[in-house]
Amino acid sequence: MAAEIVNPRSESDAGRPGPSEPFDPAFALHRGGKMAVTATVPVRDRDDLSLAYTPGVAKVCSAIAEQPELVHEYTWKSQVVAVVTDGSAVLGLGDIGPEASLPVMEGKAILFKQFGGVDAVPLALDCRGVDEIVETVARLAPSFGGVNLEDISAPRCFEIERKLQERVDIPVFHDDQHGTAVVTLAALRNAARLTGRTLGELRAVISGAGAAGVAIARILVEAGIGDVAVCDRKGVVSADREDLTEVKRELAGFTNKAGKSGTLESALDGADVFIGVSGGTVREEAVATMAKNALIFAMANPNPEIHPDVAHKYAAVVATGRSDFPNQINNVLAFPGIFAGALQVRASRITEGMKLAAAEALAAVVADELSADCVIPSPFDERVAPAVTAAVAAAARADGVARR
Amino acid sequence: MAAEIVNPRSESDAGRPGPSEPFDPAFALHRGGKMAVTATVPVRDRDDLSLAYTPGVAKVCSAIAEQPELVHEYTWKSQVVAVVTDGSAVLGLGDIGPEASLPVMEGKAILFKQFGGVDAVPLALDCRGVDEIVETVARLAPSFGGVNLEDISAPRCFEIERKLQERVDIPVFHDDQHGTAVVTLAALRNAARLTGRTLGELRAVISGAGAAGVAIARILVEAGIGDVAVCDRKGVVSADREDLTEVKRELAGFTNKAGKSGTLESALDGADVFIGVSGGTVREEAVATMAKNALIFAMANPNPEIHPDVAHKYAAVVATGRSDFPNQINNVLAFPGIFAGALQVRASRITEGMKLAAAEALAAVVADELSADCVIPSPFDERVAPAVTAAVAAAARADGVARR
Repeated sequence: MAAEIVNPRSESDAGRPGPSEPFDPAFALHRGGKMAVTATVPVRDRDDLSLAYTPGVAKVCSAIAEQPELVHEYTWKSQVVAVVTDGSAVLGLGDIGPEASLPVMEGKAILFKQFGGVDAVPLALDCRGVDEIVETVARLAPSFGGVNLEDISAPRCFEIERKLQERVDIPVFHDDQHGTAVVTLAALRNAARLTGRTLGELRAVISGAGAAGVAIARILVEAGIGDVAVCDRKGVVSADREDLTEVKRELAGFTNKAGKSGTLESALDGADVFIGVSGGTVREEAVATMAKNALIFAMANPNPEIHPDVAHKYAAVVATGRSDFPNQINNVLAFPGIFAGALQVRASRITEGMKLAAAEALAAVVADELSADCVIPSPFDERVAPAVTAAVAAAARADGVARR
Repeated sequence: MAAEIVNPRSESDAGRPGPSEPFDPAFALHRGGKMAVTATVPVRDRDDLSLAYTPGVAKVCSAIAEQPELVHEYTWKSQVVAVVTDGSAVLGLGDIGPEASLPVMEGKAILFKQFGGVDAVPLALDCRGVDEIVETVARLAPSFGGVNLEDISAPRCFEIERKLQERVDIPVFHDDQHGTAVVTLAALRNAARLTGRTLGELRAVISGAGAAGVAIARILVEAGIGDVAVCDRKGVVSADREDLTEVKRELAGFTNKAGKSGTLESALDGADVFIGVSGGTVREEAVATMAKNALIFAMANPNPEIHPDVAHKYAAVVATGRSDFPNQINNVLAFPGIFAGALQVRASRITEGMKLAAAEALAAVVADELSADCVIPSPFDERVAPAVTAAVAAAARADGVARR
């Protein structure tokens, strides 16, 4: 039924270096962008036009005006996610602004499609205030089924996500927080299982108290971790510190039951789990003080906090953020299925239950193949997105946020 | 090079009526929406991912951060237009709100692609204030190469377009104004030629002083029409009236050289041209008072102000807005090529010269086939978009608004 519409760029421009440009496969691939819009209905003659546009479209508009929920049936709203950034914390590059962030947002959009069958539109915003961003995205909400926040700096990202979700009735999901947290939890569940332990028996140390670190701490606590301490550049985030932001004060309230203080490396002494989302480095002497059968997730990219060769000397399971080592903690394992599941049931938000269900489903995909080099599936494992989608949709129903 | 990504809806859902839905081809066609996003680069394995996403994407982002104009080279920005509405004046349905307007905006988006090769994203905004809309769209500008305003009520539409264009360096174009004006001018040029007259010899009467009427009056004056009077519900918009809005006062200043006042029908006495964009009706007695070789463009949909059967009794050329009569004044003849041309040269705005050039090019397409039933090409004439695109790009260069 779809009209055959070819994106002219993909034939004429893509892959050709510009006149003064040294050949580089990344630049060549990005020429003209990485995505296009297509019609899924024919518009080849007057009859087509009179159904897809005027006059036929008028009765569809009138029906939605009378029964607003029909917008989900007769438009692409429930199929399309806004990928929103302000360009303030892009990859490891930092604050490069909206235009320069677009290649990442386009990349995210095509991953949504490729891995989750979800349409996505990159929206890089030229504004920085928390309330400005919230207001702008809230005004866009009628056109979208969900909002994926991306590469927005901490601690603004926490407030933006919370305030925006209070304003709109579609799911808001900051992937740098929750996508990372879901995949980390899935891998940690499997690593614990492999080494014959429950999450409740583990004490974890997280290096990094930004978007990812905070969200990982939260989900680990919700999942029943024995204890978790989060460290920023000044060491363990503990209640006795007087330099904490609001988010870190809150964090101190529900983490670090053991009451550690001091440096990251001192907190590692006897710890079962290291989770690195900081970009710092940890000396081998400190790694050596971890408990037996340690689980080391050194996820900084491109330089893991603990090199895998070093980590393997002390750990039962090693994971990184890199694709050239086993056990890559890659958000693409989570966000496409999470949104696909949420959109499928028209969820009004993404609950903690939906995130936990996503992690469980993701972990279960490799249950039969579980090994020290396989605690998490490959991003290209085709079982992943359907499993996560189904689990998230079911959890949305269980949590009462599904609207069909 | 494009990855084979199939939109799941087009196979599973489109065209199937829902469980409780009577079969209707318009509803069936709209199920699941009319558009999708696709990747134009492959994302099938780790190598693909490492170029289109991390780590390869980082160097492209860094390059844009250093040289901002590279955003046009390495993203889809210069290929994609935002189709923006607030749902306040949708088709003939009026103020039906953002959600209910989405089927029209999706329709517009797929026409952009089908006829102009331009990607377009429907954005129906949940806000109504002029400044709110301007601010919201200005914040979105980094992600788009142009903004097509659509179905925004008059007189707000005039102020929104002007203020927004002052804020952003990408073209802003309210199609209900300028698309209609360009196509009307093209048809009128050919109708005048066919009847052996220049525009300067014609006196025109426009019924309707909304978005389309005002823009048509402007472009006709710029194109050198002999005289034009615009009528609203109270009659001719003339300087002696005390009930005029700001826009109409301005209009009175540059139209109606003949100093007419009173009703539309009285103004028609001896007029050469009638242009209807009002939805009202004109009695045959008044049509009969028009000058010999009258040109009647009765463009209201679905009910022309003067039925073509009546119009033909008095007119040398009759045009309507309907596809089932000859000479359909259809905006799709203009907006795809106008944006394609503007994007091609990265124009910072759409000048009057670009609109006039679009009308000239559109008129010229049927120069050899010119007849009373063919003063404007069919929307499916494949010569149209390339001709308009080339003319608009050249005019942008001539007017100094092209950036390449």
